[in-house]
Amino acid sequence: MAAPVDIPDIVIGRLPIYLRALSQLADEGHDITSSHELGQRLGISSAQIRKDLSHFGEFGKQGTGYQINHLLGQLKQILQVDHEWAVALVGAGDLGHAIARYGGFLERGFRIVAVFDSSPEKIGRELNGMQILPADDLSTVISEQQVKIGMVAVPARYAQEVTDELVKAGVRAILNYAPITLVVPKGVHVQYIDPVAHLQRMTYYID
Amino acid sequence: MAAPVDIPDIVIGRLPIYLRALSQLADEGHDITSSHELGQRLGISSAQIRKDLSHFGEFGKQGTGYQINHLLGQLKQILQVDHEWAVALVGAGDLGHAIARYGGFLERGFRIVAVFDSSPEKIGRELNGMQILPADDLSTVISEQQVKIGMVAVPARYAQEVTDELVKAGVRAILNYAPITLVVPKGVHVQYIDPVAHLQRMTYYID
Repeated sequence: MAAPVDIPDIVIGRLPIYLRALSQLADEGHDITSSHELGQRLGISSAQIRKDLSHFGEFGKQGTGYQINHLLGQLKQILQVDHEWAVALVGAGDLGHAIARYGGFLERGFRIVAVFDSSPEKIGRELNGMQILPADDLSTVISEQQVKIGMVAVPARYAQEVTDELVKAGVRAILNYAPITLVVPKGVHVQYIDPVAHLQRMTYYID
Repeated sequence: MAAPVDIPDIVIGRLPIYLRALSQLADEGHDITSSHELGQRLGISSAQIRKDLSHFGEFGKQGTGYQINHLLGQLKQILQVDHEWAVALVGAGDLGHAIARYGGFLERGFRIVAVFDSSPEKIGRELNGMQILPADDLSTVISEQQVKIGMVAVPARYAQEVTDELVKAGVRAILNYAPITLVVPKGVHVQYIDPVAHLQRMTYYID
């Protein structure tokens, strides 16, 4: 399926959430769902879900709902996660260790193929079956293995520098765990994992 | 400052991002910034930033920009993070360990005061200066210490059950690291940390 080019990014951002909810429904043994049921699970209106999906075609029949497995497959194709992606991880501290060991990445199509660190005590050690590589080898390894996705798990003060190297080596998508805003050239995508920002969004509402 | 009641949640969601960028600017030694400079850093239009902030009052003078420290203080008040929050962490696996050891929570106003796990091998062990408590004690400890924020770092299949207990014990805001959508009563807030969803949002764009 050719990806339509003019879909708002906010719609694209909801597709992984639909994918997650559909996988959950499938795991629970359901075969069919509706925009209503999905919406209730997600706190999103069923109209919004139907509108989002309508950008990509016709997935459900009026009155019969969605075939979960079919819709899962279609969403995976749209998001290009119907095949495995190689990922480079920079930073092998506590956070890097947790990321490397987290089974959920591979389960959902992302294989960490290399881990880098600049600390001499860490380089050469094993982490989840990989040997931690020196940060100096970053661009060679990433270019050679044509890795397009990087995860940044280094202290905030190094995050921009690491990002620049990743981008130079050919990385197109960066998941940044450092609590700073990164500057990247056009055509490179950044997403942030900042749990404190999520907490601060909720404290606003606590009486 | 009394929080106005009718601010769209999407605006509230951007305030922590402004807070983060302003802290970064202050760390870099800046005293003053503008909606233009902030917007460039964040990839958000300056008009949007001015509009978001205008919900809460007048923070900058036309032509002279924002006093960074003043705006930081105001945003912290608005988000109610001008004082420290106690947080309970459920799950002391790899992820729970990384969360407990991550210095960024305390630095930005969130103190993990208790860690729970149900595994007999983990209970009683030390984690970042805390003793891991049995999950059975969760509701007592949380009620007694009046903890309002919980972090869920347990396997997906236990996440809803843990959430139900947290809510029953008085928790009002949950940061969920398990890749499932949680059901909570009205008045309880949930935010999700799902790195795979962020990756999937970016793979859409990679040629």
